[in-house]
Amino acid sequence: MTDIAHLGPVELLTPKGEESLAFFVETMGMEVEHQQGPSTYLRGWGDYQPWSLKLIATDTSGMGVLGLRAASQDALDRRVAAVEASGRGLGWTDGDRGRGRSYRFTDPDGHTFELYYECERYRPPPHLQPALKNVPGRYTGRGCAIKRLDHVNLLAADVRANRDFATERLGYRLYERIQLDDGSEAGAWMSASIAAHELIYTRDALRANGRLHHAAFWVDTREECLRAADIWLDAGVEIEAAPSKHAIAQGFFLYGIEPGGNRVEVTTGGRFVYAPDEPCVVWTEAERAKGQAWGVQTVPSFHTYGTPPVPGR
Amino acid sequence: MTDIAHLGPVELLTPKGEESLAFFVETMGMEVEHQQGPSTYLRGWGDYQPWSLKLIATDTSGMGVLGLRAASQDALDRRVAAVEASGRGLGWTDGDRGRGRSYRFTDPDGHTFELYYECERYRPPPHLQPALKNVPGRYTGRGCAIKRLDHVNLLAADVRANRDFATERLGYRLYERIQLDDGSEAGAWMSASIAAHELIYTRDALRANGRLHHAAFWVDTREECLRAADIWLDAGVEIEAAPSKHAIAQGFFLYGIEPGGNRVEVTTGGRFVYAPDEPCVVWTEAERAKGQAWGVQTVPSFHTYGTPPVPGR
Amino acid sequence: MTDIAHLGPVELLTPKGEESLAFFVETMGMEVEHQQGPSTYLRGWGDYQPWSLKLIATDTSGMGVLGLRAASQDALDRRVAAVEASGRGLGWTDGDRGRGRSYRFTDPDGHTFELYYECERYRPPPHLQPALKNVPGRYTGRGCAIKRLDHVNLLAADVRANRDFATERLGYRLYERIQLDDGSEAGAWMSASIAAHELIYTRDALRANGRLHHAAFWVDTREECLRAADIWLDAGVEIEAAPSKHAIAQGFFLYGIEPGGNRVEVTTGGRFVYAPDEPCVVWTEAERAKGQAWGVQTVPSFHTYGTPPVPGR
Amino acid sequence: MTDIAHLGPVELLTPKGEESLAFFVETMGMEVEHQQGPSTYLRGWGDYQPWSLKLIATDTSGMGVLGLRAASQDALDRRVAAVEASGRGLGWTDGDRGRGRSYRFTDPDGHTFELYYECERYRPPPHLQPALKNVPGRYTGRGCAIKRLDHVNLLAADVRANRDFATERLGYRLYERIQLDDGSEAGAWMSASIAAHELIYTRDALRANGRLHHAAFWVDTREECLRAADIWLDAGVEIEAAPSKHAIAQGFFLYGIEPGGNRVEVTTGGRFVYAPDEPCVVWTEAERAKGQAWGVQTVPSFHTYGTPPVPGR
Repeated sequence: MTDIAHLGPVELLTPKGEESLAFFVETMGMEVEHQQGPSTYLRGWGDYQPWSLKLIATDTSGMGVLGLRAASQDALDRRVAAVEASGRGLGWTDGDRGRGRSYRFTDPDGHTFELYYECERYRPPPHLQPALKNVPGRYTGRGCAIKRLDHVNLLAADVRANRDFATERLGYRLYERIQLDDGSEAGAWMSASIAAHELIYTRDALRANGRLHHAAFWVDTREECLRAADIWLDAGVEIEAAPSKHAIAQGFFLYGIEPGGNRVEVTTGGRFVYAPDEPCVVWTEAERAKGQAWGVQTVPSFHTYGTPPVPGR
Repeated sequence: MTDIAHLGPVELLTPKGEESLAFFVETMGMEVEHQQGPSTYLRGWGDYQPWSLKLIATDTSGMGVLGLRAASQDALDRRVAAVEASGRGLGWTDGDRGRGRSYRFTDPDGHTFELYYECERYRPPPHLQPALKNVPGRYTGRGCAIKRLDHVNLLAADVRANRDFATERLGYRLYERIQLDDGSEAGAWMSASIAAHELIYTRDALRANGRLHHAAFWVDTREECLRAADIWLDAGVEIEAAPSKHAIAQGFFLYGIEPGGNRVEVTTGGRFVYAPDEPCVVWTEAERAKGQAWGVQTVPSFHTYGTPPVPGR
Repeated sequence: MTDIAHLGPVELLTPKGEESLAFFVETMGMEVEHQQGPSTYLRGWGDYQPWSLKLIATDTSGMGVLGLRAASQDALDRRVAAVEASGRGLGWTDGDRGRGRSYRFTDPDGHTFELYYECERYRPPPHLQPALKNVPGRYTGRGCAIKRLDHVNLLAADVRANRDFATERLGYRLYERIQLDDGSEAGAWMSASIAAHELIYTRDALRANGRLHHAAFWVDTREECLRAADIWLDAGVEIEAAPSKHAIAQGFFLYGIEPGGNRVEVTTGGRFVYAPDEPCVVWTEAERAKGQAWGVQTVPSFHTYGTPPVPGR
Repeated sequence: MTDIAHLGPVELLTPKGEESLAFFVETMGMEVEHQQGPSTYLRGWGDYQPWSLKLIATDTSGMGVLGLRAASQDALDRRVAAVEASGRGLGWTDGDRGRGRSYRFTDPDGHTFELYYECERYRPPPHLQPALKNVPGRYTGRGCAIKRLDHVNLLAADVRANRDFATERLGYRLYERIQLDDGSEAGAWMSASIAAHELIYTRDALRANGRLHHAAFWVDTREECLRAADIWLDAGVEIEAAPSKHAIAQGFFLYGIEPGGNRVEVTTGGRFVYAPDEPCVVWTEAERAKGQAWGVQTVPSFHTYGTPPVPGR
């Protein structure tokens, strides 16, 4: 594995705390692991950490801190050194619930990250104890029954700068990217594992900074993704893009807007990249114009909407 | 359609009322539509009637009354006349919650049925209102999220006599049956529609009368059937037969024992019979010895266990 | 069952005989049962009849004769009498390969049908013999591996007149329909069984007559429908509508145009209608404006394109 | 990633060359990439290398050489040094078709491996060119339509010794293992990635050496695994274990014996291990006695059968 083991937990800000919480608990089927002040710590049944999503009721939307777990203490030290050398370091914090000291920094676009290694494993209470000992928690069987946080897509005014930062400073592998006819980069799909993507940057059409495109939550099968669309429909969730298959990375998706305004994805599938020397797949404007894998044209808002909103636009 | 439109609702008796109710609500994900004394009226989200299962807390297990809805008032009259002529009629009752007068009778093995035509359609309360108007109720998204009652398998000391009664008096179509080497009939799969089976008789190994083999509840996909096995495992439900595919009728199954002792199936799939002159498929002992479709040997209890228990055996 | 047991076989005309045949054999995975002159008789592995699709190489596209199998000889006589009384009868023919005398007629829009009862069952050659005796033929495991013909959607200048003919003269049940704000009918979904739809009429936007909207072929699971989209993509088939779920009837779909120009659907799912008194679901213009079940807007060609093409338009 | 990027290609020996080849091509749906003398080079549509299986017609069954691709040239050097230091090295070879020089060695049980880094990527011929550029080859749509080689399970007289070799010399991560009541190890599940298992050792009940338990081939969904069972049934393949879910690693399986006698698995699912410090899950005899995840008892042959056969037993 790379020096980064995986991404997460992620913080989501919401101006509609109660409604957002109801969405993640009742509709998405996540569990509340802890509540403290304006923050609710949530988990999917398959997250090995105690929580993967911290929902913060506040006056805006968007992403707060995005955690990155290092693969070891040495890996953490290496990555902190690399980030510090970039001049983007903000220094050590005490971490958050259940994780040790963390090194805070921002990417070139201004999103906040924390690198850490030490963390607790989830210990389920008796009523959430699974039958099989290689499963972190019991399948909730509620709503979309989200398994775990999967990936995050960040908007960036300059995708290339952030992609370079992620690959050079953090050690991410670049699997796919979009190169427009003018030579600029419209998106970059990166991973720290064989999974098709974990950290994604896509161009912020408003050229704003620090915004979120979406946070994606995993289910094991496409049938669950299709069912999630039924559940969202009945629950009145705004479906932005009905289930279909991405050309890029081949992930199966369902996109919608949670009550706080943040775009959320239910995802599964996606290709595995076993080749250690896998060439980066470069998609052209002409290829992207074909839409998603099966020709579904991407809804325009997908290219423009992000959180938090940009005042005056 | 035949004079019988479909089977159901079904009554299940349980000596463990609370535990059985918890099973059907929390694990199977059915909704409580009504409670009255020892009886709880339950429904799957896709049942068009207000309820399809009446769970009755009492001192034993097994099946109470099995409803059969006629296709029309005329069809009801025809079937009542045919049953009366058989001498097995018990006369008219006031029906049950939400259904009109019903004609009660027993099959040759002694199971109790009620034929009826008049009944109410389900009107969901606001929180269970589905988004699409051609769906009866909102997908519960809880546990196995059972859609509806699908079929019932009754044990009979003499399968042939009961099969003849069902085809001749009720008008069922016989799609498949097992004929043992000695010429006797070990099972008969019948339907009133293109669905592979709705009413099944299988031989009672104890030669007892009036017992239940299992009641089967429908989910739309095999993935839901596989997930149901995970849910049962975590919930401590006794799994009698893990998900696999039947050779007979090609249904996909999961069998287990609910807390009250009754065998319950989560089912999906099964062949459609469009030919109006479909020949009955006759399975031999040698063919049955091959096990289920993919060779899984049927667990011995499947051939012997039924409810209620037979004293002394 | 109603007097009609089921729809089919269907004839499709194609001006590109070789390419269309390659599509149905290689891409759709159907089997050639017989060839004779310009006609190729094809079957899905689950069709109980020897063939369900007759592909006719000629100078145009569209549908030829649509067969309707009666449920019995008596049912055939009843329906022939009803059709004759309508004045739309064309008289008896010798039927087609493997089926007996057939009564030919046209619906009010001019599509040609043949009612019949007598027909052969498929007897697979040794290399297509299935292991289970309740399966008509061996799963081909080629391309989309179509199981059987499922339904046909006919364009009509006057939907209502054709719907009335189908329900009154043929005995179809009307399950769902679209009623526009001006009171006219834009579509009618009918069935002769519990399946959500078998015979559909939708409005011909060009007010032409006798045209085909699409012929639909069944696969057992949504996963197969999703995979079919992959297969079509690789095979260069024109995908008109990527897999998603219909609001009407709740069927899962994939639409495309076969080389001869005819629209073809790969379909599965769809609701079951067990209630003998199921009220017809009436969809309004406002409801249809919401798109398919999960909000996918229907592609404009879906509302206008049919075969054969209309000269000058 | 670890120093090993992934396992494969694998060589399988077969005394029934033609029948085995027909099995892998027609039933499993793999493509012949090359043939040379007694060897046929085969690939799944999703293998990024030109071939992942080399089928060798000879006088016995079992596994030949198992390739291990290093993550880089440096990683290769590190692993070769570690293996050499163990005294189990056999020296450099010229590799095989499409791969560069390879370092041959045996594990303590005597299975032959080759470590390599340099290799070609698959370049599909026009008729196998996929539509999406991030897919190696076109989905074959034939039979089980195997995507790629997934993992290999090797029998070993002493599991512990081989597990130690794999973790210490090759750098595999140990995710799960079985520890019998007497303290001995009956199985060890290891991986070089987040995938649940790639290299497995299980105890050879005959205490023979160098034998194969099974080679496993990947499909993307459980539905494809279920369908594979239908295909195997029709093709007369010996199904040893019908589709179900493993408790260990949570993979979904179908096991059978190919004509040459080797056990083959069609597999999908399995947990992802994102935690860099994931504790090894240790299964006890009592836990294993519960059978597979949903309680299916493992068929006895699964614990005893391997290839090649052991003379006299």
